[in-house]
Amino acid sequence: MDPKPTHAPTVVIENFYPSTGAPNYLLKRVVDEPLDVYADIFKDGHDVISAVLKWRLQGSTRWFESSMSPMGNDRWHGQCSFQKCGRWEFIIEAWPDSFRAWKNAYKARFDAEDPEIPVESREGGKLLAQAGHRARGAGSTDTAAELDELAAMLCQLKAQDLIDIVLSDDLQQMLDRYPDRSMSTISPPMRAIVERERGRFSAWYEFFPRGAEGRADKHSTFRDCLGRLDDAKAMGFDVIYFPPVHPVGVTGRKGKNNSLTSRAGDVGSPWATGSKQGGHRAVEPALGTLKDFAWLVGEANARGLEIALDFALNCSPDHPYVKQHPDWFYQRVDGSIRYAENPPKKYQDIYPLNFHCADWKNLWRELIDVVLFWVAHGVKIFRVDNPHTKPVVFWETLIAQVHKRDSDVIFLAEAFTQPRMMQVLGKIGFTQSYTYFTWRESKHELEEYCRGLTQTDMRWYYRANFWPNTPDILPHHLQNAGPAMFKIRAALAATLMPCWGIYSGYELGENTPLPGKEEYINSEKYELKARDWSQPGNIKGLITELNRARQENRALQLYDNLHFHRADHEKIIVFSKATPGFDNRILVVINLDAHAPAATMLHIDLAALDLNWDASFRVHDLIHGSSYEWRGPDNFVSLDPKATFMHLFRIE
Amino acid sequence: MDPKPTHAPTVVIENFYPSTGAPNYLLKRVVDEPLDVYADIFKDGHDVISAVLKWRLQGSTRWFESSMSPMGNDRWHGQCSFQKCGRWEFIIEAWPDSFRAWKNAYKARFDAEDPEIPVESREGGKLLAQAGHRARGAGSTDTAAELDELAAMLCQLKAQDLIDIVLSDDLQQMLDRYPDRSMSTISPPMRAIVERERGRFSAWYEFFPRGAEGRADKHSTFRDCLGRLDDAKAMGFDVIYFPPVHPVGVTGRKGKNNSLTSRAGDVGSPWATGSKQGGHRAVEPALGTLKDFAWLVGEANARGLEIALDFALNCSPDHPYVKQHPDWFYQRVDGSIRYAENPPKKYQDIYPLNFHCADWKNLWRELIDVVLFWVAHGVKIFRVDNPHTKPVVFWETLIAQVHKRDSDVIFLAEAFTQPRMMQVLGKIGFTQSYTYFTWRESKHELEEYCRGLTQTDMRWYYRANFWPNTPDILPHHLQNAGPAMFKIRAALAATLMPCWGIYSGYELGENTPLPGKEEYINSEKYELKARDWSQPGNIKGLITELNRARQENRALQLYDNLHFHRADHEKIIVFSKATPGFDNRILVVINLDAHAPAATMLHIDLAALDLNWDASFRVHDLIHGSSYEWRGPDNFVSLDPKATFMHLFRIE
Repeated sequence: MDPKPTHAPTVVIENFYPSTGAPNYLLKRVVDEPLDVYADIFKDGHDVISAVLKWRLQGSTRWFESSMSPMGNDRWHGQCSFQKCGRWEFIIEAWPDSFRAWKNAYKARFDAEDPEIPVESREGGKLLAQAGHRARGAGSTDTAAELDELAAMLCQLKAQDLIDIVLSDDLQQMLDRYPDRSMSTISPPMRAIVERERGRFSAWYEFFPRGAEGRADKHSTFRDCLGRLDDAKAMGFDVIYFPPVHPVGVTGRKGKNNSLTSRAGDVGSPWATGSKQGGHRAVEPALGTLKDFAWLVGEANARGLEIALDFALNCSPDHPYVKQHPDWFYQRVDGSIRYAENPPKKYQDIYPLNFHCADWKNLWRELIDVVLFWVAHGVKIFRVDNPHTKPVVFWETLIAQVHKRDSDVIFLAEAFTQPRMMQVLGKIGFTQSYTYFTWRESKHELEEYCRGLTQTDMRWYYRANFWPNTPDILPHHLQNAGPAMFKIRAALAATLMPCWGIYSGYELGENTPLPGKEEYINSEKYELKARDWSQPGNIKGLITELNRARQENRALQLYDNLHFHRADHEKIIVFSKATPGFDNRILVVINLDAHAPAATMLHIDLAALDLNWDASFRVHDLIHGSSYEWRGPDNFVSLDPKATFMHLFRIE
Repeated sequence: MDPKPTHAPTVVIENFYPSTGAPNYLLKRVVDEPLDVYADIFKDGHDVISAVLKWRLQGSTRWFESSMSPMGNDRWHGQCSFQKCGRWEFIIEAWPDSFRAWKNAYKARFDAEDPEIPVESREGGKLLAQAGHRARGAGSTDTAAELDELAAMLCQLKAQDLIDIVLSDDLQQMLDRYPDRSMSTISPPMRAIVERERGRFSAWYEFFPRGAEGRADKHSTFRDCLGRLDDAKAMGFDVIYFPPVHPVGVTGRKGKNNSLTSRAGDVGSPWATGSKQGGHRAVEPALGTLKDFAWLVGEANARGLEIALDFALNCSPDHPYVKQHPDWFYQRVDGSIRYAENPPKKYQDIYPLNFHCADWKNLWRELIDVVLFWVAHGVKIFRVDNPHTKPVVFWETLIAQVHKRDSDVIFLAEAFTQPRMMQVLGKIGFTQSYTYFTWRESKHELEEYCRGLTQTDMRWYYRANFWPNTPDILPHHLQNAGPAMFKIRAALAATLMPCWGIYSGYELGENTPLPGKEEYINSEKYELKARDWSQPGNIKGLITELNRARQENRALQLYDNLHFHRADHEKIIVFSKATPGFDNRILVVINLDAHAPAATMLHIDLAALDLNWDASFRVHDLIHGSSYEWRGPDNFVSLDPKATFMHLFRIE
């Protein structure tokens, strides 16, 4: 490095925490959520350092600022929070604080009766006069005059008449308003993506609009969806997520149970998008019109619900892009377009897009415009289908471009793949992500997995959304299972994470798999399903209670406050979540065994709940209404899958 | 991020290991030392990735390259080493490997008797033809012709006649010579500073040339130093380090024992540099001339020794800079130049430089030129005095500029200060660093400290140089101590680290402190000292054996191969060092108690020595000549400070 034209860096600023590991990766926050920032800040010699944390909306010229404090061993701490949605950057500025350094030395000289005190008084006077000059430049003429006066005093009076003024907090505060930052070092910027509260706290309910009425003999329309909306609302969900609503392809359409040939009347998979009726900007005519969709969005919003759309970049052979932009697809040597394959498996109903085709810029622009089209139609949440099969940088670009237009838009990544890919999608901007929760069953697995999500660096860039089921996944533990297991998995998802969701039918206990697969038999992906939305044995009551507890307890709305406690019984899991000020403390105890009662001693880490080791406290079960007086860390619980299978305690 | 004009990145490359944490920080290596590099490398979809590690001397256009291998879970590994001293950069290049992906799919199709095989054969033919084109472009006409022929075969023959050729290693190797990297992603560069072996492995002997003859009545000269050189050589040292040899200041010269006033004949501190006779480019006339110095450098080199100079940026009030460049110092309001202070302490014999003065660029240039001046006089090693009181970026600049001219130059940082400052000086380019070893006494302290140095990320940027004493530091445990303690501390320094050093007098057991201080009484810093360089009770014999063992055992020359084992006795420390191939294995056992014998069972982690749990092996003591037959992990030792206080075993 060659000497720079301006002054050389004076202070070293390094070892940021948190850090996402690369300049383009984003740290996640929601509006007004505090962020604690740590860094090593030090310089050569005996200078006193001052440091501030500064943050601004990207592109803005207005910096917000708060002072940082040393914690010892050159570690500093500062805190900020971000006032609105968008991309923010934050930096640390640190400088040798000439007045503080002079003041410390002056005090030492004074105590030692240093004969050079008069010269040093004048040095101090010079510093005050400079501060006065800065104050005047900032328009504070009164302060400037006051500083000038003090400066003159330092050049005239004796030290014993000055020392109290010099050391006073008043003077320091005045100086701190006009600090001398001419020798500042500024750290490289860190970036944060700031989203609305729903980015962190949301309960999702997925249903197929075409199956809204639960009739096998009739394709429901957008206009038929109010019943589902009301039911979801009653259960306490706030995001209604629809599989793709676009025209379903005809060529290669799959039949029931994913069969290769469809029969007349088969509705096909909504994930094979595009027909003569249009592509990703159109709606399937059997569901209604764009106007009907707009009406439904309005009805949802009126209920405090949001509609989330599926952004699934699968084109059926009938998609308009195929004719308009054949170069956007993979061309084979025989002139045909390559359909999706994972040899020897073939998916003839879908043509994958070539994101690196020669015309890739126009392709990407078009896909971004598709999202903006739906944003303009009032959709602010997108569940993105298989993002891990498209370039990471495509999503980075898309999300940034969409957020430039509307920073309220939330993206949920449906990437069931290897950990690194799932993580990087969070780092480049996806708000929420699907997880492996669906396959984590034992206490040990659940604890280890949730600790990884919420207590490691993943907390800064990855927000888990826990789904017990999806249209694609009926995990083994739910297959042919009774309501007890459905309750357990719902309770885990809803209390471990602030974001959770179910695919409709879950509340009814739908449990029949395709033999040998973790998939539903007679999957709604390929046919209309008959359902009684209030069939006996449903667990809508429990879901309602869970969502109510989440709404009423802020501790359940936060992400990285999860703390596991010890229970002697291997089937009983116990964890707590508390707000930072401990004004809301939740303790959850769940029997993971859907078949046998379990009783155990719990060993509560009371410090994690801000309780003394011998504290007496009352735990109140928000689901069952019961209360217990507990004392100290060790307390007894007994849970029965047929009755009270869990406690959702508020500590009072 | 907006779409880029060329192709968009295809592969994600992240989570480098090792990593120094900032783009300007340098990873340390010596010439030909292997470096294992790890990164997460992955991309969307089902493509097969190929990746290479590439490295080049900074500024060179010639890349070296080696292929990387996947380790599972998207983690990749590669290895490189650097062929000469200098600054190197290394990157990872990764790309979707279209031929490997096609081949995998082709095999699956073949096994499934896919009817589309003929088209897919032609797709493969196209890939081979493209490879042929690349081969032709690279001048390999023969290979190109062969690839063209194969391409034609793929378009004509049946799959069963092709499959063996397609899957052959020969074909893959041919393709790998002309890979299609058109869709490559290239990682940000990482940087390494590569130095000669002595950067990692060196034994330092510090003496004051003016005291070379050990006479209080005579100021020795450069011409009087051969006795010291020969003695140091005989003890096995290879670096001879001199305190500053420049003219010593007169104004404010300190007297004996750092007294404020000097008497006639007092020689003053060599660290107060500069007089009428010159500054940092001159030599103290009492030592001789530049010509004498050059002669001594030649004599040292002829003995296989190197002279290291002290680079101490302290100017006495008589330094030529004071008159020539008063603006390089701190000006006070009364027009005087500020002398060094740590109020209320004053150091009137030293004027600190103002590294951020208006003329800082010329000041920095001059100081860099001073180093280059001595480099031109054959000095390739500098011990830098108090680097932590000058800006970090100054050292970064200086070291980079010096290395541009001569990458053989080694810098040792004498920064006894807080950990972060000591670490960052290593990160920006200091070759070696002083440490807290001098104050680490107990087994637990030594183990913890050495693990931090050699087993954490510090191993990548910090090279400890262990000194039991310095002219400034006579630690409490050496004060009034007998030879046993001097032996223990020398043995620890020489075997724990490949770099160690002593300040002369240590071998003689000089042990008298200034009362109440960790300093020598009658310090050589301020006076000429009488010494008998072979006085009875000296430990030169042990030092000679230690340095001989270091020379003869490569395991003791490596840095991060330190492994501690367990001993039941709290005073007995045991550790091993082995070469990567285990062809040299050293096991060191030291009784830290200088007063009492200790006997204990050792519990050797045999796996760390590539031995089976029940292995029988012979340990041979390189110091005492004794040998023992050991079996399994648990073995007995008995060590007596008056006799065999340590074992330096080679495992045979």
